[in-house]
Amino acid sequence: MLDFSKVRIVEGFPTPGIKFYDITTLLKDGDEYRKAINDMLENAKSIHPDVIVALEARGFFFAPTLAYLLGVPFVPIRKKGKLPAATYSEQYNLEYGTDVIEIHQDAIKDNQRILLLDDVLATGGTMSAAVKLMRHFHPASIDLMFLIELTALNGREKIKGCNIHSLVQI
Amino acid sequence: MLDFSKVRIVEGFPTPGIKFYDITTLLKDGDEYRKAINDMLENAKSIHPDVIVALEARGFFFAPTLAYLLGVPFVPIRKKGKLPAATYSEQYNLEYGTDVIEIHQDAIKDNQRILLLDDVLATGGTMSAAVKLMRHFHPASIDLMFLIELTALNGREKIKGCNIHSLVQI
Repeated sequence: MLDFSKVRIVEGFPTPGIKFYDITTLLKDGDEYRKAINDMLENAKSIHPDVIVALEARGFFFAPTLAYLLGVPFVPIRKKGKLPAATYSEQYNLEYGTDVIEIHQDAIKDNQRILLLDDVLATGGTMSAAVKLMRHFHPASIDLMFLIELTALNGREKIKGCNIHSLVQI
Repeated sequence: MLDFSKVRIVEGFPTPGIKFYDITTLLKDGDEYRKAINDMLENAKSIHPDVIVALEARGFFFAPTLAYLLGVPFVPIRKKGKLPAATYSEQYNLEYGTDVIEIHQDAIKDNQRILLLDDVLATGGTMSAAVKLMRHFHPASIDLMFLIELTALNGREKIKGCNIHSLVQI
């Protein structure tokens, strides 16, 4: 079971009023990182995903490892301008302004079971845009997995219609 | 052994005249991704690293998985402004302008064997800055590992004094 005390909480980052959950302190503890991955793996096995997708950059700390362990493909969602071939893209709102995420159009086959992964579910804005990207591939199912879910921010409201798995709810 | 035909070569990305090695086509082939990781793992075992470090973002496709399999800590180097606690930082030159990479000051203990990983060794500019970051921790040794080394660009010249391991040289 994940030892949440290994996650460093930084007040006022990146902007005043925000409480940042820094998972690098968990990653640098080899045993705790293994436990976190093993917890995710147990959950992921019951989902039987055909493909694992994650968001740049912190989602990449976990998703490729799960893909390796399950023997399934890994597909990255990246910020605008990073992927070299034809992409689908989605814009989403930040506190100030907007941002764009992209996925290669040939990354995922139709009718697959998709497991989409990120480190923290906060307001759900980025994840909602990621789910829209998934719809281009007409998936058989979409499951979402998070290391940490900040329930007070109601991120689940923005990603209805998906199965949600959180290792820790705060 | 890595099937290099799984890497997509995109001419003229991100700018005219550049040949981009797109590893997402390898990642989305579950079997080939496993082979790439297993090749890296065989190399990494003989290095006996105490910690594995990688550069944002494509290094994260491989390094956390290796850390999991070896049972050692994983530490990310990130672009400026992404890490919330006290950092060391290094500036390096791009074709136009400069960029900055950072690592948490408390990320690595002194006198450790560091394995630093990235997907492609091209001109070596970023990796040279990453090696400078490592020097803050007075490491016992620094090994560098790349999936692909583009030998014509002479990246090795910029990272002398480290042990270099490339899975594929082109």
